[in-house]
Amino acid sequence: MKIDGITTRSIWLEADGHSIGIFDQRALPWSIERLILSEMEQAADAIATMATRGAPLIGAVAAYGLAMALRQDSSDQALEAAHKHLAATRPTAVNLRWALDRVAAHVRPLPQHRRPAAAYAEAARICDEDEAMNRAIGAAGLPLIREIAARKPGQPVNILMHCNPGWLATVDWGTATAPIYLAHDEGLPVHVWVDETRPRNQGALTAFELAEHGVPHSYVTDNAGGLLMQQGLVDMVILGTDRVTANGDVCNKIGTYLKALAAHAHDVPFYVALPDSTYDPATPDGASVPIEERNGKEVSTVTGPDTEGVMRQITVTRSPVRNPAFDITPAALVTGYVTPRGVLRGAEELASLIKE
Amino acid sequence: MKIDGITTRSIWLEADGHSIGIFDQRALPWSIERLILSEMEQAADAIATMATRGAPLIGAVAAYGLAMALRQDSSDQALEAAHKHLAATRPTAVNLRWALDRVAAHVRPLPQHRRPAAAYAEAARICDEDEAMNRAIGAAGLPLIREIAARKPGQPVNILMHCNPGWLATVDWGTATAPIYLAHDEGLPVHVWVDETRPRNQGALTAFELAEHGVPHSYVTDNAGGLLMQQGLVDMVILGTDRVTANGDVCNKIGTYLKALAAHAHDVPFYVALPDSTYDPATPDGASVPIEERNGKEVSTVTGPDTEGVMRQITVTRSPVRNPAFDITPAALVTGYVTPRGVLRGAEELASLIKE
Repeated sequence: MKIDGITTRSIWLEADGHSIGIFDQRALPWSIERLILSEMEQAADAIATMATRGAPLIGAVAAYGLAMALRQDSSDQALEAAHKHLAATRPTAVNLRWALDRVAAHVRPLPQHRRPAAAYAEAARICDEDEAMNRAIGAAGLPLIREIAARKPGQPVNILMHCNPGWLATVDWGTATAPIYLAHDEGLPVHVWVDETRPRNQGALTAFELAEHGVPHSYVTDNAGGLLMQQGLVDMVILGTDRVTANGDVCNKIGTYLKALAAHAHDVPFYVALPDSTYDPATPDGASVPIEERNGKEVSTVTGPDTEGVMRQITVTRSPVRNPAFDITPAALVTGYVTPRGVLRGAEELASLIKE
Repeated sequence: MKIDGITTRSIWLEADGHSIGIFDQRALPWSIERLILSEMEQAADAIATMATRGAPLIGAVAAYGLAMALRQDSSDQALEAAHKHLAATRPTAVNLRWALDRVAAHVRPLPQHRRPAAAYAEAARICDEDEAMNRAIGAAGLPLIREIAARKPGQPVNILMHCNPGWLATVDWGTATAPIYLAHDEGLPVHVWVDETRPRNQGALTAFELAEHGVPHSYVTDNAGGLLMQQGLVDMVILGTDRVTANGDVCNKIGTYLKALAAHAHDVPFYVALPDSTYDPATPDGASVPIEERNGKEVSTVTGPDTEGVMRQITVTRSPVRNPAFDITPAALVTGYVTPRGVLRGAEELASLIKE
């Protein structure tokens, strides 16, 4: 997607052939700062300090980090040490460990002198596959937007989005944003209602992404979606997910469920962008998913530039706070799951995602 | 209610018999600062600068402001000039004009020397009536809380609230908070989920009020309510309203509708605290109510103390913003209207509020 007017991925190999570039996401959306990572330790730091974020992107950075380590020392001991070190940067990130395991398994059988190049190649494949997967989600979702556009010629297709299922959290395209970028790029008039997504305000990242790529959008409070639907100003909802269970229940960022209820009340189609890896047929339903409760400071403080542009953390309440991070949207409220294999409807169609 | 450990109203006559005291609401919830108003110009300033806020409270301050003016000069010309000056401080505030008209009509027929004392007496009556009205709403709503408490002995009654329908916006008790204060004062175990209420975060005021009076509560994002109901953690919703139309539709702070949908989906009773004056039988339904769109800066900036305690305004997004301030909750989602004349259910019972 575009940033600073230039089409780019969120991770790229530098001209030297062994360093990678990423955007420092701690600085976004306030300033666009690129980080160049040349050594494994730098990659590990970028993950641990959340300079890079988003499950697919973290996996890609870690994969390159392992390649960087092998470039210095391609012995078995060095491989295992680097794997362990990188895996420890975000201990609960499943995708991080998956990417590291994949690169390690790929290079372990090889003679030492071939390992660095093979690791870089595998990391590049991980990136290409993530981009292709999101591109396929985009292609599956694009006809949904085309159909609405055909019904209201000359008027924008209004799409409501919650959180940041965007390209900055993936290698490119994002998940729920992919159909929107494709629609925009082919000239369809889209306008995105961007939910702020308290407490962490990921909507500011989504709005930044859309602005950089030139997609019309409006930032609204999480409270606004119901009224917008009452006024007929939402044609569809599409958002991401952290997990879809066997019966089709959707675990996603807190607040998703309220939008699903409103969409249902107003016959607004409600779509969930779903990469294969996020479908979890081993968990029967949403009631079985533990809901993470995060630090109350995420609610009670907000960070941003003050009137002089100095970054400040301010307090919004000193009261006791509760901060559940996710909610469950029942399958009955979901119009369809936009997957790389097409738009699937209902638990039976979802089961086709199970890899043979 | 209590503040700083002392039971007080939000407006009081000082010992000198002609000055009034109020809390500076621009400083809340960060610090408790009292303002003493002795002259009409000070009362006008307090209203215009939003040192005082909330429709009923503004009316009371203005009424005393008129009395202060008459204390200096009780001529007809002075009366009309003060009326005009005070009314201009918040031109759209209906309650402000109503209170001024009432005091002026009361003193106009009187000989000049009797006007100041009569104006002070009428202002005091306006305050007493507001307190009595809210107390009556509290008495009507208290049995609803008692019933829930009786069904779950030893466990707290969990009440979800949106915005600040609290005592700080009235002379005392608040509207939706009145039943909660009465329940707490008689020893019922209540716990309030306080919605943050973006964009203006009035939840911080509600949480402050509840903390000062000792009522257990938790501040949550506006996104959290759906999950809390999914988890069975909400026993009832009660909130205020800006207008209830003839058919029972409720115009209230943006986000109310999303909570009403969730309450309906989970069979959680949804109550609206309704003073007589807020019922608007002349407007047929919610679709006829114009929705105010407010300045986008309310969304894109947040103000609070930084890590050193210095008040700062920070930016949360530089994206285009939309800021609709209210939404409409259809009558079908409302369990009952808690009024000074009891809990009314449905449009027919509401019609009993029409004054003969």
